[in-house]
Amino acid sequence: MFLETIRSEGLAHLSYIIGDKGKAAVIDPRRDCDIYRDIAYQHDTQITHIFETHRNEDYLIGSKELAHQTGAEIYHSKHLPFQYGNPVSEGDCFLLGNCILRILETPGHTYDSISIILADKKFSTRDPIAVFTGDALFIGDVGRTDFFPDKPEEVADLLYNSIFKKLLPMGDQVIIHPAHGAGSVCGAGIASRDFSTLGYERKYNPILQKNRDEFIRHKVNEHHYKPPYFKRMHRLNQEGAPLLKNLPKPAPGNVEEFDKTAMNEEMIILDVRSPEAFAGAYIPGSIAIPLEMVPSFAGWFLPYDKPIGLIVDGYDQVETAVRYLIRIGYDTIFGYLEKGVHKWEISGRKYESIPTVYAGEIIRRINTKEDFTLLDVRSKEEFERGHLPNAVNVYVGELPDNLDKIPGDHHPLTVFCSTGKRATIAASLLKKNGFEEVENWLGSMTACSAIGCPIVT
Amino acid sequence: MFLETIRSEGLAHLSYIIGDKGKAAVIDPRRDCDIYRDIAYQHDTQITHIFETHRNEDYLIGSKELAHQTGAEIYHSKHLPFQYGNPVSEGDCFLLGNCILRILETPGHTYDSISIILADKKFSTRDPIAVFTGDALFIGDVGRTDFFPDKPEEVADLLYNSIFKKLLPMGDQVIIHPAHGAGSVCGAGIASRDFSTLGYERKYNPILQKNRDEFIRHKVNEHHYKPPYFKRMHRLNQEGAPLLKNLPKPAPGNVEEFDKTAMNEEMIILDVRSPEAFAGAYIPGSIAIPLEMVPSFAGWFLPYDKPIGLIVDGYDQVETAVRYLIRIGYDTIFGYLEKGVHKWEISGRKYESIPTVYAGEIIRRINTKEDFTLLDVRSKEEFERGHLPNAVNVYVGELPDNLDKIPGDHHPLTVFCSTGKRATIAASLLKKNGFEEVENWLGSMTACSAIGCPIVT
Amino acid sequence: MFLETIRSEGLAHLSYIIGDKGKAAVIDPRRDCDIYRDIAYQHDTQITHIFETHRNEDYLIGSKELAHQTGAEIYHSKHLPFQYGNPVSEGDCFLLGNCILRILETPGHTYDSISIILADKKFSTRDPIAVFTGDALFIGDVGRTDFFPDKPEEVADLLYNSIFKKLLPMGDQVIIHPAHGAGSVCGAGIASRDFSTLGYERKYNPILQKNRDEFIRHKVNEHHYKPPYFKRMHRLNQEGAPLLKNLPKPAPGNVEEFDKTAMNEEMIILDVRSPEAFAGAYIPGSIAIPLEMVPSFAGWFLPYDKPIGLIVDGYDQVETAVRYLIRIGYDTIFGYLEKGVHKWEISGRKYESIPTVYAGEIIRRINTKEDFTLLDVRSKEEFERGHLPNAVNVYVGELPDNLDKIPGDHHPLTVFCSTGKRATIAASLLKKNGFEEVENWLGSMTACSAIGCPIVT
Amino acid sequence: MFLETIRSEGLAHLSYIIGDKGKAAVIDPRRDCDIYRDIAYQHDTQITHIFETHRNEDYLIGSKELAHQTGAEIYHSKHLPFQYGNPVSEGDCFLLGNCILRILETPGHTYDSISIILADKKFSTRDPIAVFTGDALFIGDVGRTDFFPDKPEEVADLLYNSIFKKLLPMGDQVIIHPAHGAGSVCGAGIASRDFSTLGYERKYNPILQKNRDEFIRHKVNEHHYKPPYFKRMHRLNQEGAPLLKNLPKPAPGNVEEFDKTAMNEEMIILDVRSPEAFAGAYIPGSIAIPLEMVPSFAGWFLPYDKPIGLIVDGYDQVETAVRYLIRIGYDTIFGYLEKGVHKWEISGRKYESIPTVYAGEIIRRINTKEDFTLLDVRSKEEFERGHLPNAVNVYVGELPDNLDKIPGDHHPLTVFCSTGKRATIAASLLKKNGFEEVENWLGSMTACSAIGCPIVT
Repeated sequence: MFLETIRSEGLAHLSYIIGDKGKAAVIDPRRDCDIYRDIAYQHDTQITHIFETHRNEDYLIGSKELAHQTGAEIYHSKHLPFQYGNPVSEGDCFLLGNCILRILETPGHTYDSISIILADKKFSTRDPIAVFTGDALFIGDVGRTDFFPDKPEEVADLLYNSIFKKLLPMGDQVIIHPAHGAGSVCGAGIASRDFSTLGYERKYNPILQKNRDEFIRHKVNEHHYKPPYFKRMHRLNQEGAPLLKNLPKPAPGNVEEFDKTAMNEEMIILDVRSPEAFAGAYIPGSIAIPLEMVPSFAGWFLPYDKPIGLIVDGYDQVETAVRYLIRIGYDTIFGYLEKGVHKWEISGRKYESIPTVYAGEIIRRINTKEDFTLLDVRSKEEFERGHLPNAVNVYVGELPDNLDKIPGDHHPLTVFCSTGKRATIAASLLKKNGFEEVENWLGSMTACSAIGCPIVT
Repeated sequence: MFLETIRSEGLAHLSYIIGDKGKAAVIDPRRDCDIYRDIAYQHDTQITHIFETHRNEDYLIGSKELAHQTGAEIYHSKHLPFQYGNPVSEGDCFLLGNCILRILETPGHTYDSISIILADKKFSTRDPIAVFTGDALFIGDVGRTDFFPDKPEEVADLLYNSIFKKLLPMGDQVIIHPAHGAGSVCGAGIASRDFSTLGYERKYNPILQKNRDEFIRHKVNEHHYKPPYFKRMHRLNQEGAPLLKNLPKPAPGNVEEFDKTAMNEEMIILDVRSPEAFAGAYIPGSIAIPLEMVPSFAGWFLPYDKPIGLIVDGYDQVETAVRYLIRIGYDTIFGYLEKGVHKWEISGRKYESIPTVYAGEIIRRINTKEDFTLLDVRSKEEFERGHLPNAVNVYVGELPDNLDKIPGDHHPLTVFCSTGKRATIAASLLKKNGFEEVENWLGSMTACSAIGCPIVT
Repeated sequence: MFLETIRSEGLAHLSYIIGDKGKAAVIDPRRDCDIYRDIAYQHDTQITHIFETHRNEDYLIGSKELAHQTGAEIYHSKHLPFQYGNPVSEGDCFLLGNCILRILETPGHTYDSISIILADKKFSTRDPIAVFTGDALFIGDVGRTDFFPDKPEEVADLLYNSIFKKLLPMGDQVIIHPAHGAGSVCGAGIASRDFSTLGYERKYNPILQKNRDEFIRHKVNEHHYKPPYFKRMHRLNQEGAPLLKNLPKPAPGNVEEFDKTAMNEEMIILDVRSPEAFAGAYIPGSIAIPLEMVPSFAGWFLPYDKPIGLIVDGYDQVETAVRYLIRIGYDTIFGYLEKGVHKWEISGRKYESIPTVYAGEIIRRINTKEDFTLLDVRSKEEFERGHLPNAVNVYVGELPDNLDKIPGDHHPLTVFCSTGKRATIAASLLKKNGFEEVENWLGSMTACSAIGCPIVT
Repeated sequence: MFLETIRSEGLAHLSYIIGDKGKAAVIDPRRDCDIYRDIAYQHDTQITHIFETHRNEDYLIGSKELAHQTGAEIYHSKHLPFQYGNPVSEGDCFLLGNCILRILETPGHTYDSISIILADKKFSTRDPIAVFTGDALFIGDVGRTDFFPDKPEEVADLLYNSIFKKLLPMGDQVIIHPAHGAGSVCGAGIASRDFSTLGYERKYNPILQKNRDEFIRHKVNEHHYKPPYFKRMHRLNQEGAPLLKNLPKPAPGNVEEFDKTAMNEEMIILDVRSPEAFAGAYIPGSIAIPLEMVPSFAGWFLPYDKPIGLIVDGYDQVETAVRYLIRIGYDTIFGYLEKGVHKWEISGRKYESIPTVYAGEIIRRINTKEDFTLLDVRSKEEFERGHLPNAVNVYVGELPDNLDKIPGDHHPLTVFCSTGKRATIAASLLKKNGFEEVENWLGSMTACSAIGCPIVT
């Protein structure tokens, strides 16, 4: 019996393949599903079952793709109005060699959420050794319950019951395998560690220390951002994501193509290079999203009706960017700029840069009361936990709709976040929207804390 | 915090790398230790600590090698008379980011056995989330206690205490990470699954269902084979295995070199091809050990004072064979035969073959009372659980010392085991020792059971 | 300017990618065309042109596949009645950076054959540095001219003119890049070296030492085999091979599926393991084609209307077999047997084996005038150059249609070729057709020559 | 017979492996010689011979390393005072299968330069098919002859004879394989194409169009830079470069280690990121050499007596940088900064940036006669072929010794070259030496030409 965890960075999505004696099941596959087949082959195993623990809002589920490639059957909750797959209910049971997989309905995050219990027939057909908890129970946190804003208490209560009445009673000894790890938008408190047990969570997951009322109050008051692309994921997952068959392999485009196409607004230029490289030189009009931020932030800013032209440092970044983009449904990629910004520079075309500033200089300005604007693009929660005096807060995701909130009279406009990465995105958006004298504070609040600066809460 | 399991097939050895915030520890590294460095780099992490849970008898520990390559410090029990490394005692504590690693002395398998407790400082500095149990507690079994034949009860009792008084009391919720998985000579009952918890083992590990007396009696009566190479491992591990610096990369040798060198007995020819390929044609005098059996069986048959000449199907098999061989200290590899047996065949040299036979034919012979010899090379335990009438049992590992026990008067001499792989080894040994009319029953007892044949117990 | 040669073993097919300043052309792409895109990316280059030097009979051209994946345009002779691509004529010119590619019509192998001249604009726009000669001129040989059996002199004469009037006059200094290397069915005399120049060929290519009459006589009298699959390639290449989009990735099948499907004759079992492994044990009814022989021999024996079930030694062989099979249009692959013949053996099912014999034993039998049958499955030409006394010759490719020519009265039936590989194929066909006591002489005539045996010519 | 070209970028070094029937020779191996062994294995071939065409000044020859790893013998000119290897003379002959390798003495670049002639025994034992020309004859250029400044005519004359009396007479049909391709410091006119023949060079290599006198005059007047590391290469190659055994694998270092060690001047910080990333943010005191420039420029600026700390974008860059550095003898690499400049930024430490400027702005300033300094760091030759009015020229390699030539009174100090890469190196050196208001003109003269700017010659 083998079990492997597949980690999709950025979305912090965890999927699993479990198999025995020639048969394997995949739980919550991502759309670029080659990895499951590769693992299956290593174990001389056929993928025969695919399970979805719940409807997903934050990425396109790869079930249909994987089913198309392998002939496996798809299973998900009978409560889903999905146009594909087979409905399952509490207690449904599947046998793969000695793996017993049993369905446990654990609503709360969504009404259709299920967990999948794993027992090892050789040792006990009844008692589980592990459970795949989807977005019900994370390590260090629980699933978000804000998708039904008209009945927040009801769903929080459902989740409480799922965890306390269904999951925890299976026993301390059960290993848990949730659908998200640290960094996911689906749970801010998720641990960086991706292994735990029901017993450990029962004792140390801070949310599970609350009683029913505290739990519901906590969930109802929680704030989560909902990037605009969630709606599209919701709709497409209902039908099943369009089949890719294989990963798009964008070709190099030349400077002329990029220039013309971008000028005509037929294409979005997405610059995935590092914050430092973007600051050094970039093509006017680009949106900067440092590569590792693409899964979490592309869906806030990129339209779905225009192809994407990539600016990269090396072809490896293209391959990674493509995986990140198709996971959230950006299937139309125009290409990447051959030899990157360098080619643009030597063509004589105009490029821009963004001055960078370090923490010591910010403190000096604050101390000397110099006139400038501090724009903090962290989340509301981060801001509230502690911020610089006089800083204005607009969350990076909501920046395009709140440009009017940015004070225009005190220059430079210094953008920052916790480390400088989201600030890079924000700086590119501001420049694209005509702001001048934008400055990127690389290091941001983390640097600030490291060297000690005035923080108000 | 990341944790990865490294599985070394054949020896069924499990080693681990755990790290956080730029620092990582490796537990029980194997000798070809490139894999730990590769994983460390993926996590942008420096290997700073190496732990040995116990002296090893079944392979060369890679601690010195890995320390040499990384500068990490080595830690093992203060009870070890080792010529390298730092001694640790119960309660010693190491901090890597939020990982707390704490030493727990768990003697029994050896007097020096330690377990390493892992706690996540962010959640609880006291309560563990996982424990690396070495050869104390396996999944579905416990460590062997036959290394001190003069005081079997004492060590069995020590192990009982280590498990019941030290490990289990940490709580059901603790995940366990043992040093061996299924297939190891260190525990016949180990589960095929390599994930479990103290709680699950407490309830379902069959050995843990016994009381102290039953436990001790069980351990004392257990039978384990001790391949002759164990002694060499024991001795070399004491000093620390010789440094390799990098993996040997054997060059192709030609037919003339192989012929001359093997004829002069300056070299052992080791044929790692499949049982079928060996049966089809092989170089006279070869020892056959199908590749995946090399880690477990090479140490029974290959001398350490002669170089090894490999016969393979493709260069991939060379690389794997080299890793398998150096893990148990066979560092002198002459080369591999360029283009393999094919080259030998077209040179006009004599090659041999071994007739193969399937289960149906064996049953026919038994039913018609044909005269032939059935040589069962499985272990004593397997044989006693059920065997064919009139079959002679000599364990494959002990065959070279027991050739006189093989009846010589009834031909053919049909060799078999559970599937035909160990039978292939045995067949090659018999032919090398002058036996004629040796026949290999591919499929062996498994085929036998599948189609129903007379089994006595 | 970069130029890379892509060698497709077995078919001994050579294709090329040449590019400069962001644009690249591929010449005679194979159907699994990922490799061209990988090379193009390494050079930060877009594949914009695809050239076909001639209609192909021995494999499916990958032009349409590559065009579909890259958007490149396809070019081939205006004399082709093809349903895709753009017609070109003598003198047509294409510019990619400093690469000038110019069409030269070089009929003979086919009426539509073209060569493609490469000049480097930076040094000379007129004089070529290299020429892609397709199947007109090989290194050490020239293209076959037996595809127009009603006018053999005419096409031989055309080829003479193409070589002597068009290619050679370009000058000794021109490097040649033909479409086939050693081992191709398209030219028995092709050198093992794949680099040469017009000057070197002019002086040392044995065929080019002949005058026009000798040349024509030589070509007219030449004998080439035409495997039955050639017709299908011819027809499919006319339309353009069906699009694959990506490589088939066969899944593991279990023993029951293989057994049932093969018994019902719904599937062909293709065993691609080594000759030795096949001899050791195989599934009754299998066709054996050792992996490296698949490109050259699958088209002789495998029907196109049944799926293929693969028997392999490890998954790597599956991937290679799939590439080999789709290159000649076998797109329907049922799967591969999980864990191979081993799984079949332990299921208790009947398997067969083929005795092997070495050269010394054959000579002994000949010398002692033992009664047995020697079946030589080499080509007519090889046989005529020297064979064993009393050997019967039936070419392996023509064996299925000539089973009645095999003497049935002298046993065993010893099959051999030059090394034992084609003999393995033949042995499997004979067994499948009910012949008993078939014996495989691994080593065959090469071993024979090495140790000295009676050869008649 | 197989022949493969190994291209080492940056140094534009070409090495070769040629083999037949199980034996192979490597010509001018580089120091990280794993690639030759990998290719040899693919061809089931043993590396038995290593040839050095001449003493090398621009890199450490890998002969001793490769010989140590394979047991091959090393051969080089008898005129070399080397402490290892076997001397060869004109006419010495080596046979590997059908490959005949014959020594031809072709002095000029050095007194010890040899060429190696390749003939294919199957076709002609006398006439060559190819020749490895070392640094005697390049494609489009000839070897430099400035290493003997006291007798420039003598060596130029020797080279003339080697080419015109020895190489060219072998015939137009001979393919040439030189030791360097485009981009090497050993020949400014080398073609971008790495395939040619003696015939093509005879007709189109511009240097070969000169008569003896013109040739000698041309060579004597030629100017080449000699980076300071050449002397060290010269000396080390005499003994044979120190054995590496395997590639250094630098570990990640943390910010504190980098900060402290660099501050104490115990380490050189080498930043190999892109020019844009360096411009955006860098650690004060770093030397910037964009990764692809490391082989050509590290030897100008880095001392050999201090370890090197790398600043990279991703671990891939570490591996490449290590290969580049050890090829020119920088074996002591301290490590790389874990998570790079980002980690430095969030630590709150001071970082710097360099403003970038595009061609349009430069033209504007020139046109409006704004006061600023244009520092052109291209070579003397490039400068003389055309430069901007008022630009000051100091070659980047000679910058550290000529800081006093840089005008200090007109700000900003705008550094440029042909594209911006060497300007990045120069900018880092200027900043390290205390210059303020340094500005990097990314795009440089190439951008300038593209959009039209005032150029004087």
